[in-house]
Amino acid sequence: MVGYKFMGKAHSHAYKDIGMFFDLDKSVEMKAICGRDEANVKEAAERFGWSEYETDWRALIARSDIDLIDVNAPSNSHKEIVMAAIQAGKHVFCEKPLALNLQDAREMLSAAEKAGIVHAVCFNYRYLPAVQLAKQLIDEGRLGEIHHYRATYLQDWLVDPGFPLAWRLQKEVAGSGSHGDLNAHCVDLARYLIGDIDRVVGQQKTFVKQRPIAKSMVGLTAVSSDEMGAVTVDDATSFLAQFKNGALGTFEATRFATGWKNGNTFEIYGSNGAVRFNLERLNELEVFLREDEPHLQGFRTIMATESVHKYAAQWWPPGHTIGYEHAFIHLIYEMISSMDSRHSRTYPDFYDGMKCQQVLEAVERSIETQSRVHVDEL
Amino acid sequence: MVGYKFMGKAHSHAYKDIGMFFDLDKSVEMKAICGRDEANVKEAAERFGWSEYETDWRALIARSDIDLIDVNAPSNSHKEIVMAAIQAGKHVFCEKPLALNLQDAREMLSAAEKAGIVHAVCFNYRYLPAVQLAKQLIDEGRLGEIHHYRATYLQDWLVDPGFPLAWRLQKEVAGSGSHGDLNAHCVDLARYLIGDIDRVVGQQKTFVKQRPIAKSMVGLTAVSSDEMGAVTVDDATSFLAQFKNGALGTFEATRFATGWKNGNTFEIYGSNGAVRFNLERLNELEVFLREDEPHLQGFRTIMATESVHKYAAQWWPPGHTIGYEHAFIHLIYEMISSMDSRHSRTYPDFYDGMKCQQVLEAVERSIETQSRVHVDEL
Amino acid sequence: MVGYKFMGKAHSHAYKDIGMFFDLDKSVEMKAICGRDEANVKEAAERFGWSEYETDWRALIARSDIDLIDVNAPSNSHKEIVMAAIQAGKHVFCEKPLALNLQDAREMLSAAEKAGIVHAVCFNYRYLPAVQLAKQLIDEGRLGEIHHYRATYLQDWLVDPGFPLAWRLQKEVAGSGSHGDLNAHCVDLARYLIGDIDRVVGQQKTFVKQRPIAKSMVGLTAVSSDEMGAVTVDDATSFLAQFKNGALGTFEATRFATGWKNGNTFEIYGSNGAVRFNLERLNELEVFLREDEPHLQGFRTIMATESVHKYAAQWWPPGHTIGYEHAFIHLIYEMISSMDSRHSRTYPDFYDGMKCQQVLEAVERSIETQSRVHVDEL
Amino acid sequence: MVGYKFMGKAHSHAYKDIGMFFDLDKSVEMKAICGRDEANVKEAAERFGWSEYETDWRALIARSDIDLIDVNAPSNSHKEIVMAAIQAGKHVFCEKPLALNLQDAREMLSAAEKAGIVHAVCFNYRYLPAVQLAKQLIDEGRLGEIHHYRATYLQDWLVDPGFPLAWRLQKEVAGSGSHGDLNAHCVDLARYLIGDIDRVVGQQKTFVKQRPIAKSMVGLTAVSSDEMGAVTVDDATSFLAQFKNGALGTFEATRFATGWKNGNTFEIYGSNGAVRFNLERLNELEVFLREDEPHLQGFRTIMATESVHKYAAQWWPPGHTIGYEHAFIHLIYEMISSMDSRHSRTYPDFYDGMKCQQVLEAVERSIETQSRVHVDEL
Repeated sequence: MVGYKFMGKAHSHAYKDIGMFFDLDKSVEMKAICGRDEANVKEAAERFGWSEYETDWRALIARSDIDLIDVNAPSNSHKEIVMAAIQAGKHVFCEKPLALNLQDAREMLSAAEKAGIVHAVCFNYRYLPAVQLAKQLIDEGRLGEIHHYRATYLQDWLVDPGFPLAWRLQKEVAGSGSHGDLNAHCVDLARYLIGDIDRVVGQQKTFVKQRPIAKSMVGLTAVSSDEMGAVTVDDATSFLAQFKNGALGTFEATRFATGWKNGNTFEIYGSNGAVRFNLERLNELEVFLREDEPHLQGFRTIMATESVHKYAAQWWPPGHTIGYEHAFIHLIYEMISSMDSRHSRTYPDFYDGMKCQQVLEAVERSIETQSRVHVDEL
Repeated sequence: MVGYKFMGKAHSHAYKDIGMFFDLDKSVEMKAICGRDEANVKEAAERFGWSEYETDWRALIARSDIDLIDVNAPSNSHKEIVMAAIQAGKHVFCEKPLALNLQDAREMLSAAEKAGIVHAVCFNYRYLPAVQLAKQLIDEGRLGEIHHYRATYLQDWLVDPGFPLAWRLQKEVAGSGSHGDLNAHCVDLARYLIGDIDRVVGQQKTFVKQRPIAKSMVGLTAVSSDEMGAVTVDDATSFLAQFKNGALGTFEATRFATGWKNGNTFEIYGSNGAVRFNLERLNELEVFLREDEPHLQGFRTIMATESVHKYAAQWWPPGHTIGYEHAFIHLIYEMISSMDSRHSRTYPDFYDGMKCQQVLEAVERSIETQSRVHVDEL
Repeated sequence: MVGYKFMGKAHSHAYKDIGMFFDLDKSVEMKAICGRDEANVKEAAERFGWSEYETDWRALIARSDIDLIDVNAPSNSHKEIVMAAIQAGKHVFCEKPLALNLQDAREMLSAAEKAGIVHAVCFNYRYLPAVQLAKQLIDEGRLGEIHHYRATYLQDWLVDPGFPLAWRLQKEVAGSGSHGDLNAHCVDLARYLIGDIDRVVGQQKTFVKQRPIAKSMVGLTAVSSDEMGAVTVDDATSFLAQFKNGALGTFEATRFATGWKNGNTFEIYGSNGAVRFNLERLNELEVFLREDEPHLQGFRTIMATESVHKYAAQWWPPGHTIGYEHAFIHLIYEMISSMDSRHSRTYPDFYDGMKCQQVLEAVERSIETQSRVHVDEL
Repeated sequence: MVGYKFMGKAHSHAYKDIGMFFDLDKSVEMKAICGRDEANVKEAAERFGWSEYETDWRALIARSDIDLIDVNAPSNSHKEIVMAAIQAGKHVFCEKPLALNLQDAREMLSAAEKAGIVHAVCFNYRYLPAVQLAKQLIDEGRLGEIHHYRATYLQDWLVDPGFPLAWRLQKEVAGSGSHGDLNAHCVDLARYLIGDIDRVVGQQKTFVKQRPIAKSMVGLTAVSSDEMGAVTVDDATSFLAQFKNGALGTFEATRFATGWKNGNTFEIYGSNGAVRFNLERLNELEVFLREDEPHLQGFRTIMATESVHKYAAQWWPPGHTIGYEHAFIHLIYEMISSMDSRHSRTYPDFYDGMKCQQVLEAVERSIETQSRVHVDEL
């Protein structure tokens, strides 16, 4: 694994717990974690349960006792590390965004496909039981023809102008702001649930253009300095979409939605029914079915913790809810299960990572040109 | 009053009940109701409590014993009736949309202002206690600088393709579909709550293009025939907006949001706080305040039924909720109160009706041109 | 009508509006309202729309142009007025509680039955569309055998110890506190929905035993004096019940449930399904059905505003909610409809009023004896 | 650790994950797990991460390399194992119920106190961040004097009469049904949050008295046989309580609340505020404060995932929710932290286990005698 911050912790936890709850053909060995700061990565290795650590990712990739490279270092390092891992014949699990731009993503996909490795992108939210249930209902035809898709990813951690200039607010490191960080999840879920997007038009804003430079920062907790620096990414990006299947979509990502902490939501309205999801209540899915008798129609709140719900039986009895970290375990379970034979495939993979990037860039172009953009033109 | 259908009933009820709950300087006398079908209008007069009826609106306007003309006939008749009423020196209360197009709305506004009458447009939702509370919080500065405005008006009565071709689906009568009917309310609330819109870009769709022609129709209940006709208005219209105060907005109106019946919602996120409203729970307002102590922050659900909430003390004790029709009474109370002296003013008035129309048309132009449109260009 | 305060207003409003929304064989004429204070009752007559007023209820009853006497004067006057009205051959509509004690209630029932009049008690909450839907589902067998009934009536208007000594806090006028005022509604709904109660055991408390005597009081708004007086009724009463059909019940009424304004709730759990209701969201009923497919089970929130829901078609389109006052109109509609022929019956009637009183008294006896009491022993 | 079923898995997971998220002075070594069936316990040891296994708990206790014995074997074995562990000078962590009866619980408490060991009982729900927040608000005086405590523990896994006769339905193994299993949690939370109970009166029922004997059973999934056996524990038990501080309480536990899966809820109403909690949404606490300005009062939903909320900073960023299993980790963290020096104490301990048992038995006695019982009489 390369990276040991927020996502490093979430991924490590998944590798550690997976064998306790899921049956795998092979055992997971947490060989080595890699980071540039030796003291920090050493501590992370101990805390997270990795046998060894490396300070050079090239050394990590060169090891013959490692089958899978997990890349969750900052976004601007993804391409280089991933390409090297592919060339070394490793399976690769990459955090989102797959790359900083569409061109890079296409190269990475192409390399991965040629190498025949298992490649995965960490759009973890697909793997929540409630999201799986939404997918199942759509596949069963319960919603009918889809007319509307509405997605938001609402957070509020930037609403305080005194919040410092984190790396996520610098374009050269993060690539993008709320759009790349949050809309990326929304676009992946939309593609997963109802299919590809045809056309988009968007708008974007940076509300607070200067922020104090951080002296130090752990998670979202930082110590600010007196010096100010420019925010070079968007605080909020929203866009309208038309899907290839004819549905209309609205997407909205922001770090200025005061009161929301992790409001990754979607609503899907079809000719036969509807579903609604909110990550802040991730065990639940709201479902409306027109097939219900007229006097009994209403949105029902389903707790996706029954044994009939995907992955739920691996955990606790009904109503004993799971949390944020569990989706990583499910995704990694599927990825590892697909590693039995070369050329097998897991989802979401680099193709999904590339397609997501394509939509995000189409939105950016529409903002520059103030007009509608066809996704496939990119 | 001209018109005796859904809105005729709602307005009549308001005139009938207002004196029981509100103190007015003058008493309300329900003189005469007007409609073209004598049998129907006669029955409406009796049922709704009007002393007399007329079958020609010109005769109604010609009467000297009438101070206020209430126009809730189909949208394509508004201009002619309103202009005649203004010329006769009557106060005028007009259902939304004020007119079928911006040019007409401007003429009506101009005539009303010149005549010095009281003029009002029935954007009734402004007058719900929970909406009044949202306005109060914004005016008190509780939300701070506004960053985001999100509005929806979600209904589902057209999702069945067998639903017949009602007059609301015919452009020549209704003027517009979900956009003019539903987004009109959203735009008025947005202007009322946070101010004017600068730029917009939208998308629009008619999902079901042919519907059976109705033999007869009462409210939303209809008997269909075998003959099909073309739907000439939009089923759904969404748009992105930038407000003059710098806030970003998203608006979405649809009659295809399966499971929603009357989902007129808004969410406002500011630098200090946020509010959320949903017409299906119209007694409630959700409020988040960053001024709360850190461990106590969360969205609170306020029931706007306390005596400190506007209009609530006129009704029942706390927690004894009101319904859809009450907002009409509040609006009419304010309008009648303003009729004490000529040249006094009530809200929303024809200026608000015109400004709403301007935004709606800007959205339509953006859809035609597939690019962003400045509202003031129209 | 005798009485012109809170309930006088609610009943008057119902008589006034009923003809506008419901079809009756006869027209409702609001002949006369009666109260002891001439100035007040005169003003009430004008405001509420009564043709005349009386200051002596005996004079009212003596009038030959009146068919129905509506009694909503303070509880300690019910028996005398109702008995006189029955003797005069009038139909009688009495506010709850029917009487101050079971013996009186039995006499009133007996007199009413002998006289063959239509008699009704104002347990208005039966007549909300959402409650009607709960009843319908139970009658359809959707819930199966009932195992649990949970009822609360939670208010908080007494939690401030400075709130004055209202008449509702004096046993000689009100008869009882939260128990008679609030549990009365809960018991009636329980009987209506799942049947009679067999055994009870309760507990009761007056948290604030002395309160300032009110100089004046309008609704729940009062001006206090410096003098203190004793609260002689209960602030809160809860009890356990076993129903004749084998179900277990819990009931809780209080005026000290901080944050609740009008929390009349019930939950019913049966072998096939469940329902939940909360008066603060009176348009909604939550329903769970075990007949749903396993992966689709969840509580659904049904808005009882569709034309298939009882009384809803008389009002507004789906999703256009009604308020507190509408249940009175529905109840009075049923009562007036039953007045076509002598000996016809409406619900809830004096038998229901008596049965409710019997349960309330059984609870009081159980509190005195600190042991379980069989309702039929009283 | 003795036991390897549902609770064995939950506890093992906690020992495994604790070091990754919490800083302990000592490292946790998972030495050995014990069970009677060698094949099963061997598999559990591997899956759960224990270094070794034992098939005789006496051998486990005899080992000198073990400091803490975790007892989560069936309830009827607790006393014997715990007493032996205490005599061997081990710290002891025992699942609830501590014992099958009050007398045994008192002996275990006495032995533990004499031995000076750290002793803990697994009332895990105390350690949810939202419950900790409720406790904090009460300690801060935010709720004022407490008037009402309402608790439920609602499940529905027995509502199907075909569900087999699990060991939890047999008195000789489980000791009690819903009362001992579910009300035990409710009583502990009540004691923790607002203090000891003075008097109780209850009612109880077994709705389905005969069930098919299970051939095999894993979790709640079973294969039934044709043979029937008697259910010897309660399906539902509710009781009224008066607390020593003067508050009134209602408690209700059932496995027949159709639609509820894990409805461990409490509501607390005080003179200054109120809180509400529901385990099915365990990251949230609803709070009402009378100190809020009048027009801003309402129940707020606080997500207890901010760094100011206890334990939350150890996990993920705000809004990234935790699940059922996390409370075990928090409890075990506190317990292990208290093991630094002999005679230190953790909560809940055997005293809490004994006091909980005392209340449960007082309720049972009240049901037998059909009258109120003082808890301290037992």
